[in-house]
Amino acid sequence: MPEVGLIDPPKSSYMKPTNKIHFAIAQMNPTVGDLSGNAEKIIEWIAKADRSEADLIVFPEAALSGYPVWDLANRTDFVGAGLKHLEGIVRSTRGAHVQAVVGFIDKGRSVCGRSRNALAWISGGRILAKYYKRLLPTYDVFLEDIFFEPGVEGRVIPWKGVGVGPTICEDIWDEKYPQKPVKELRAQKAKLIVNISASPFYAGIHSVREKLLRNHASRYRMPFLYVNQVGAQDELIFDGRSLFVDARGRVLFRAPAFEEGLYHFEWDLRQDKFRALPSSKDLDPIPEIYHALVLGVRDYCRKNRFTRAVIGLSGGIDSALVAAVAADALGPAAVVGVAMPGEYSSKGSWEDAEELARRLKIQFRVNPIREAYAFMNGIYRDQKCVNGLKACETGEVSLALENLQARLRGLNLMFISNDEGRLLLSTGNKSELAMGYCTLYGDMAGGLCVLGDVLKTDVYRLARYRNGLGAVIPENTFEKPPSAELRPGQKDQDTLPPYDILDEILKLFIEENRSAKTIRQMMRRKGVPEKVVSEILHKVDHNEYKRRQAPPILRVTQKAWFGRRMPITNWYR
Amino acid sequence: MPEVGLIDPPKSSYMKPTNKIHFAIAQMNPTVGDLSGNAEKIIEWIAKADRSEADLIVFPEAALSGYPVWDLANRTDFVGAGLKHLEGIVRSTRGAHVQAVVGFIDKGRSVCGRSRNALAWISGGRILAKYYKRLLPTYDVFLEDIFFEPGVEGRVIPWKGVGVGPTICEDIWDEKYPQKPVKELRAQKAKLIVNISASPFYAGIHSVREKLLRNHASRYRMPFLYVNQVGAQDELIFDGRSLFVDARGRVLFRAPAFEEGLYHFEWDLRQDKFRALPSSKDLDPIPEIYHALVLGVRDYCRKNRFTRAVIGLSGGIDSALVAAVAADALGPAAVVGVAMPGEYSSKGSWEDAEELARRLKIQFRVNPIREAYAFMNGIYRDQKCVNGLKACETGEVSLALENLQARLRGLNLMFISNDEGRLLLSTGNKSELAMGYCTLYGDMAGGLCVLGDVLKTDVYRLARYRNGLGAVIPENTFEKPPSAELRPGQKDQDTLPPYDILDEILKLFIEENRSAKTIRQMMRRKGVPEKVVSEILHKVDHNEYKRRQAPPILRVTQKAWFGRRMPITNWYR
Repeated sequence: MPEVGLIDPPKSSYMKPTNKIHFAIAQMNPTVGDLSGNAEKIIEWIAKADRSEADLIVFPEAALSGYPVWDLANRTDFVGAGLKHLEGIVRSTRGAHVQAVVGFIDKGRSVCGRSRNALAWISGGRILAKYYKRLLPTYDVFLEDIFFEPGVEGRVIPWKGVGVGPTICEDIWDEKYPQKPVKELRAQKAKLIVNISASPFYAGIHSVREKLLRNHASRYRMPFLYVNQVGAQDELIFDGRSLFVDARGRVLFRAPAFEEGLYHFEWDLRQDKFRALPSSKDLDPIPEIYHALVLGVRDYCRKNRFTRAVIGLSGGIDSALVAAVAADALGPAAVVGVAMPGEYSSKGSWEDAEELARRLKIQFRVNPIREAYAFMNGIYRDQKCVNGLKACETGEVSLALENLQARLRGLNLMFISNDEGRLLLSTGNKSELAMGYCTLYGDMAGGLCVLGDVLKTDVYRLARYRNGLGAVIPENTFEKPPSAELRPGQKDQDTLPPYDILDEILKLFIEENRSAKTIRQMMRRKGVPEKVVSEILHKVDHNEYKRRQAPPILRVTQKAWFGRRMPITNWYR
Repeated sequence: MPEVGLIDPPKSSYMKPTNKIHFAIAQMNPTVGDLSGNAEKIIEWIAKADRSEADLIVFPEAALSGYPVWDLANRTDFVGAGLKHLEGIVRSTRGAHVQAVVGFIDKGRSVCGRSRNALAWISGGRILAKYYKRLLPTYDVFLEDIFFEPGVEGRVIPWKGVGVGPTICEDIWDEKYPQKPVKELRAQKAKLIVNISASPFYAGIHSVREKLLRNHASRYRMPFLYVNQVGAQDELIFDGRSLFVDARGRVLFRAPAFEEGLYHFEWDLRQDKFRALPSSKDLDPIPEIYHALVLGVRDYCRKNRFTRAVIGLSGGIDSALVAAVAADALGPAAVVGVAMPGEYSSKGSWEDAEELARRLKIQFRVNPIREAYAFMNGIYRDQKCVNGLKACETGEVSLALENLQARLRGLNLMFISNDEGRLLLSTGNKSELAMGYCTLYGDMAGGLCVLGDVLKTDVYRLARYRNGLGAVIPENTFEKPPSAELRPGQKDQDTLPPYDILDEILKLFIEENRSAKTIRQMMRRKGVPEKVVSEILHKVDHNEYKRRQAPPILRVTQKAWFGRRMPITNWYR
């Protein structure tokens, strides 16, 4: 656990002891359901903060349970077990100077039914105050209304002569709601807002968050302490980047992204002499996404007790990037890359895969599928004759035979996964999943889909970014035209429009939810025929059935497949 | 489209024309997104009702769009296209005597964002009134809060001297909500409540519904006309069974289950001389479920343009039942059953499968996997040697080799599916999916999972029920102990507790959401050791990752996998 010292500490000459508050910011990475492990860490960090003479340590939303727990929130035994652990945390603060704010799940008001997303203010072996989240996000990846009962009011907690307004995550994202928790707390003379969050990452969210906090702070003339969870949970990646924003809307403290840690920040109530950190500019989303993916893979493996991974290496850009992410997440020794050349694979593909593995220092195997393909193809041809069906003419590769090749690769990778206890990482990207340019139980097979929320054009950008940190992906992999290599001479662009056009359309459709008509108009101006646009949109809808059977897909955009809900049976065009 | 006459018509001597209202109950099966097809049917049925001199024709909730449309509700182009079709429907009523109540999706009040789940009262080429659903179910399989903006009030619509209170589905299921739409409409002097619904089936729901309507009716002394959608949409099956309940809570009309149709019912306002239909008793859930599954398979195929199906036949009870359902849904000629005997298959399995196919009159093929298994096993053994890994000793069948057999079957079935354009129906049941007693990309492969919400003990009951209609499943299939036949002498009960115990535990855990502690206590009384219970619950949680990649699973219980949301990464035990 990295620990940073004071960031930009105030000069002592400007300070009086009574004017200073020492915050410990517990940017924690809990594991969903690991109540004893999470509680242990909370107790340990409280003790550490106390030794550092911190006045208040603040943990993220749902630090004790992890987030999101989904239906677990409605299991009375789970909620009850959490409360037992909370008691242990409370007991541990006996005799401590430091006080603690801890996110947990509390019982609801009725005997059976929804629980409450709660915060406890703990001091000297007692809970001084509890607060219940009032605004429950229920859209996209959030379904809190299903699991939680909303809190009915906010109350300022008097502390050290400062009225502190407690809030949980969505409570400060009040634009769409009639209730305005921050405003109400201000009316109650709050002098500081504490917000504990489990706010999942998407590229660009940090500047949105910082802007919101700075606007709130300067509008209501109150400082904000914002403590966000870090770590990944299935599809969701939490980026941390906790913040302290002063009453003028200046950012005084910013914790690192994607790193767990206990950070210290001293707030001088007179604060005038503080130098603000520059507010975050729109970071290039590419490095952000790369590090999010690394954390996503690392945490999925760690929290599901996989120490090793396996990846099919085609020589193409997607599998190369996944291998790089996996090597960075788990260490190269934990990763096996498998080249599985088939009937229509180019020689370059194998060589590129081998070169990649060599540079990444991951294990490399070659398991050709040619023999298996010839054998199974023969069996299926014979079966068709027996059943009186016409077999394909020699040379013609039907869709069934293309899929057979992809599935023989899946079969081999799953054998390795089962046999060696390795997590299979699938390598499809968002553009392919959108178009159904992928094979169920073939290249879609795996326990986690790393790039399924990354458009193909961003895959190239991410690969370039990674090569900037150390040139691991062979130049040839960037340069050759993408191909599934399942038919002689096949290229992606035989059946798909150029990826820059395709991705622009997909972004408008999926991420921006533009209407078909608007997209057709926008693309017509760029010379893309309406028919091309319509066909793409049709394919996105039509291939919903494939995506329903995809492994969990790490979310890195504001609108990922996870959080998008579309019917399979759907005749709307 | 079946059409029934008047049910239990009143004797003419008791009637005066002014005292009678002739309802046409449009128990319709729309297709999600098929706006023109649904609109066409609505227009046709309105014309038909008009020719029959009906006074009012009532369509179900979301009849024009289909239900549920999920994120489509937030596409402005989809909502706009629906409104265009609504205009066509309205125009079609010019000069007609009959008035129409049609469920549709209307724009929301803000430009972008949620739409509204709406009802239009149409008469003589005009919309007389609109009503917006107020109670938006957001739990289990429903997520309406995400897609729809709630209506703010209900208004009685004066019609034929009768004040009619319009409601949509959840509006009458008001127990958990502070708003009480029915009570408010009563206070406005409503004389009749019309409820349009898209209320999905689960075993036993009909008597719950009927009880609710009878209680409401007798409590508020108002009759209820309840019109429910019929048909299946992905996981959800709508059962129809529209109702008319009089002001004394007597059921005067009940439309058939699982059948689309335009039904007529004449309501005598004096009504005293009516003979009520007996209120529905708790039907045996087994026949209900059987017919629901048939509709589920039929509609998934029809609405996704599959005319033919393929099923792997193991000789066991699950695949036998799926084959029977498929034959009943699609006709025997459309179904191929494939026996795929392997190294450890018993001779009886093949014979039982063949006998089943013969009796069902479906096509039967035998595609052994033995050769392929030996071949692939050899390849993987060689690969392991090359990679310096220790291969299995001869005779020991590892988990990887068990899965290999299941996946070679999946490979064959998917080849047939792709090659012949057949929908692959997967055959796993709820008990297996709960325990992870199934292979990803093996027996889990398919486009639709028919029995995934049916516990193993109910699979036997359903099979018995089906044999009662005509003995298609061989007795041997009932009698032999269930086995995956992936290892020599393997039986399910080697690793699973007896299915009657297992299913009881699963029901308590999944369907009734009981705590682990309660279940352990309850089962201890029956002599089941606590350790056995704990292991089962642990397996259910642990195998969430497999279920996430399952095909859509037809829902027939109140708590199916669809509508149950659990984290994959989850350390809670």
